[in-house]
Amino acid sequence: MTLKLYYASGACSFVPHSMLEMAGATFEPVAVKLHRNEQNSPEYKAINPRGQVPVLVDGGEVITQIMAIIAYIDAKFPEATFIPKDPLARGRFVEVLAWMNNTVHPTFTHIFMPHKFTGDEAAQAAIKTHAVGQYRTLMGELQDLVKKAHAEGRDWLGGVHCGPLDTYALTLLRWGTIAGINPEDFPELWAHVQRTAQVPAVARAMEREKLQLSLYKPA
Amino acid sequence: MTLKLYYASGACSFVPHSMLEMAGATFEPVAVKLHRNEQNSPEYKAINPRGQVPVLVDGGEVITQIMAIIAYIDAKFPEATFIPKDPLARGRFVEVLAWMNNTVHPTFTHIFMPHKFTGDEAAQAAIKTHAVGQYRTLMGELQDLVKKAHAEGRDWLGGVHCGPLDTYALTLLRWGTIAGINPEDFPELWAHVQRTAQVPAVARAMEREKLQLSLYKPA
Ligand SMILES: N[C@@H](CCC(=O)N[C@@H](CS)C(=O)NCC(=O)O)C(=O)O
Ligand SMILES: N[C@@H](CCC(=O)N[C@@H](CS)C(=O)NCC(=O)O)C(=O)O
Repeated sequence: MTLKLYYASGACSFVPHSMLEMAGATFEPVAVKLHRNEQNSPEYKAINPRGQVPVLVDGGEVITQIMAIIAYIDAKFPEATFIPKDPLARGRFVEVLAWMNNTVHPTFTHIFMPHKFTGDEAAQAAIKTHAVGQYRTLMGELQDLVKKAHAEGRDWLGGVHCGPLDTYALTLLRWGTIAGINPEDFPELWAHVQRTAQVPAVARAMEREKLQLSLYKPA
Repeated sequence: MTLKLYYASGACSFVPHSMLEMAGATFEPVAVKLHRNEQNSPEYKAINPRGQVPVLVDGGEVITQIMAIIAYIDAKFPEATFIPKDPLARGRFVEVLAWMNNTVHPTFTHIFMPHKFTGDEAAQAAIKTHAVGQYRTLMGELQDLVKKAHAEGRDWLGGVHCGPLDTYALTLLRWGTIAGINPEDFPELWAHVQRTAQVPAVARAMEREKLQLSLYKPA
């Protein structure tokens, strides 16, 4: 088997993970335990010096960065039609994907790993509190994208079938529940995420990662 | 004229700006003065509710996010061959671009706009100091990419000619000089950026934005 995906349960690697399932790809999933800091082991850093998941290995080629892995899987499995071909539709797809990846995702990093931004503990607490507020705003923006898709007669964020934008949305809302955000506060988004989780390929990836959709606990 | 680029002098919008010059596109450049907070005016927010540059307008279509604008310009001007077509080469291109956009660029935001991450002034100072150290490390990683391209016999980061990866590198190193990083500390990167600045299309965009390549002042 030449295709190998390094992933961590519940991490952003869920996006390429579910994409490979959707494509019907034969691949070897390799779990990296972030809570055991395996991403910083010398073995893993030899694969990805940045110490992060996801990593896709295809034969001798190592590809990092969700954006690049998605582009690569899309090109490798054209029959799965993940990314639209028309320039404008492609631009719209990348626009949403890039925003998730460069804005929403890093905002969660400020909540989950504030120590990445300063060694000062008081400052870490301030960063975290601020980021939770921002994250809530971003969940509202994400819900607006779901509403816009529905208003335009699309069932899914990226086109006619479930794809990486939907599983990224699932991942991001699930992270929000860890940060104390009640998914019921965003009913259309929450319904969309629940529907995404029922797509068989997505369900298989969730099963392998042993994911619960919401970890929200009322205070 | 249907193509319009909203840019701010010295901002990340320099990447699509120089790309349009490279493509020989006819476009209307519209300057947005960030220091006058024009990005948050009601007029500008009607175009981009997120209050950021760059924005590309093509006829009635508004496209935001550098990643998407680059993909769109690439598709619109195929003869400029900005992004390689081969899946692996395309993946490698997106990998570097995404890292610049989701890691290096946001690290600079922590230096330049620490108030985006907390209202607490002491925490802002802590964030800024930490980010300057990280940014220096990232400039080293960027220089390694330049060295790798040269070692592989490529003159430019993305392929056989100057393209968005090179002008993003220019922008990021230029920002570093604002943050007090001496470009001479990264001689191969600095040489690459100086060479990029001499490409006629890049020089035209720099001229329009009135950019100096280094703003470094020894302490
Ligand atoms: N810019 C990277 C970010 C990847 C990333 O944030 N990975 C996280 C999991 S969601 C990770 O591996 N974190 C472990 C760590 O930073 O120690 C991408 O887009 O692929
Ligand atoms: N995620 C956006 C980021 C754009 C961005 O950071 N724009 C900055 C200039 S480099 C901006 O407009 N800042 C103004 C502000 O935030 O007030 C992209 O990739 O296009």
